[in-house]
Amino acid sequence: MWGMIATWRMALEGVVTASQMLSQGALATQTVVDAVVEVEDFPLYKSVGYGGLPTENGDVELDAAFMDGDSLAFGAVGSLIDIANPVRVAQALSRERFNSVLVGQGAREWALSQGFSARKMLTERALQHYRKRCQQTIDKGLSPYDGHDTVGIISRDKYGSMSVATSTSGLFMKRRGRLGDSPVIGSGFYCDSQIGAATATGVGEDLMKGCTSYEIVRRMAQGMPPQQAADSVVFELEDRLMSRFGRVGDLSVVCMNADGMFGASTNISNFSFVVASEAQPPTVYLAERHLNTTRYVPADETWMNDYAARIRAPIVMEEVRYD
Amino acid sequence: MWGMIATWRMALEGVVTASQMLSQGALATQTVVDAVVEVEDFPLYKSVGYGGLPTENGDVELDAAFMDGDSLAFGAVGSLIDIANPVRVAQALSRERFNSVLVGQGAREWALSQGFSARKMLTERALQHYRKRCQQTIDKGLSPYDGHDTVGIISRDKYGSMSVATSTSGLFMKRRGRLGDSPVIGSGFYCDSQIGAATATGVGEDLMKGCTSYEIVRRMAQGMPPQQAADSVVFELEDRLMSRFGRVGDLSVVCMNADGMFGASTNISNFSFVVASEAQPPTVYLAERHLNTTRYVPADETWMNDYAARIRAPIVMEEVRYD
Repeated sequence: MWGMIATWRMALEGVVTASQMLSQGALATQTVVDAVVEVEDFPLYKSVGYGGLPTENGDVELDAAFMDGDSLAFGAVGSLIDIANPVRVAQALSRERFNSVLVGQGAREWALSQGFSARKMLTERALQHYRKRCQQTIDKGLSPYDGHDTVGIISRDKYGSMSVATSTSGLFMKRRGRLGDSPVIGSGFYCDSQIGAATATGVGEDLMKGCTSYEIVRRMAQGMPPQQAADSVVFELEDRLMSRFGRVGDLSVVCMNADGMFGASTNISNFSFVVASEAQPPTVYLAERHLNTTRYVPADETWMNDYAARIRAPIVMEEVRYD
Repeated sequence: MWGMIATWRMALEGVVTASQMLSQGALATQTVVDAVVEVEDFPLYKSVGYGGLPTENGDVELDAAFMDGDSLAFGAVGSLIDIANPVRVAQALSRERFNSVLVGQGAREWALSQGFSARKMLTERALQHYRKRCQQTIDKGLSPYDGHDTVGIISRDKYGSMSVATSTSGLFMKRRGRLGDSPVIGSGFYCDSQIGAATATGVGEDLMKGCTSYEIVRRMAQGMPPQQAADSVVFELEDRLMSRFGRVGDLSVVCMNADGMFGASTNISNFSFVVASEAQPPTVYLAERHLNTTRYVPADETWMNDYAARIRAPIVMEEVRYD
């Protein structure tokens, strides 16, 4: 029994390729990274890798992580600039005994020293999005925008090994050097092949306050079904943040246990995720909260077509008015 | 009932001052940061703040964090260069809705923009340690050294609020940009005033694999006494890493629950920690593992005198031999 689950529709192409390989006996460690690389490389996905949206300074700073659920080894990079595939750097770091989390200039230097390719990651299209956002906020100054679209993928291979990987350009218009939950173990990702794995997307600052991914895996370890683990962690965190912190941002998660059962939870109305397994071909689901549970249905053709059109639509600059 | 617990003997002076303030009604948020600042400012503590040991490049890169157990708000900095008090920057970041974790150049820029003081953090003494280490490893190349001495302090005030803060220069000879557990929520620190708090010191790469501080707080939430929570988490993580990862580094923790009961656990033989409360004056304890429990006794005068002499001892460069 092999299986895969991933956050957001954008993971589909990577999951299609990687699940084919899983079915032929490929390993979790390799397939999960290959699937994320496909998302990083696709220029129209504006929240991950090449084509990702920049910080308030106009730089594309990328975060990524990888965890091997057999050995618990993990690696992560944060604020990595102009390296083609952050998730491959994270995987390479997971093989280091020390220094397995690197950020900023040090992450970039190490990646180059190991032969990872330099690549200008800011695309013309991302720059247009940036200019539009600058224009929209010119009167009130640059303000953070709660962009929400980290790719997080879990892979379980035929041999029972599990891995998880994440990659993101983070909050659009974030400050230079800002880390969200994606490179933070326990918050953005966690994986133990004997139990299962989880990965999160949303407002990192809030997801971190609950160690979201670790807590989902822990509940699965107690025997909780993945769907119940995901929903209970998301909605308990929401309640806790509302009563203690006074507000809460977007929180979405996917998880899979060692038996290949999956779960997904969200406190928003437009979270999508992708599942593939021996039992089902790659499928995009549309999820939305319903009270303190999450309901999801397969995406229909209209939604899929609208999505394809939306990510390709021209970026219209608003007319500048001088009244 | 107020109380304080801190990792390592080096926290003593800060705990003495801060516990005096706690007894007079000062807040957890302020006292925990003031106590860490005193450690950061003391030039002879070579693993925290001013006088901290550098990376393999010779730069002092500092990590720090702060968490408010009432609101669950937290802030952290990583790889921060030449700013006087990283923990104060972390506390200021905890008040931001977004961008509350900043690393590298972005962290430095933000700190300066907020009026935090620039200060050259590399001391002549730290440079001597660095040169000695370079000389010692010249034949085999620079190698990471599992330095272990993060200061982590928990404060509980008279009003029942709790906070935790950490600060460290990290692994001596670490790579540029390396983050350990100290700025990572759930791993290096966690705090919930309704339950308790925990903070860790040791090999960050290993402490992170278990989300150590979060898991200790979670067990206290289930009603486990702090000492049992600390020991069970440390020794279960050690077992898990030995069987899965094949090796394990130093792991030490302290914790305190909402009733002011404390716990400390270590898998090494020379961990020290400091406790102060309404019930006891500031006391340094020496802890060592005994099977899968931790035993500790108050430090005697000889140990305290030896410690004072050791941190002041001249750094003797070994004779270079050319055979």
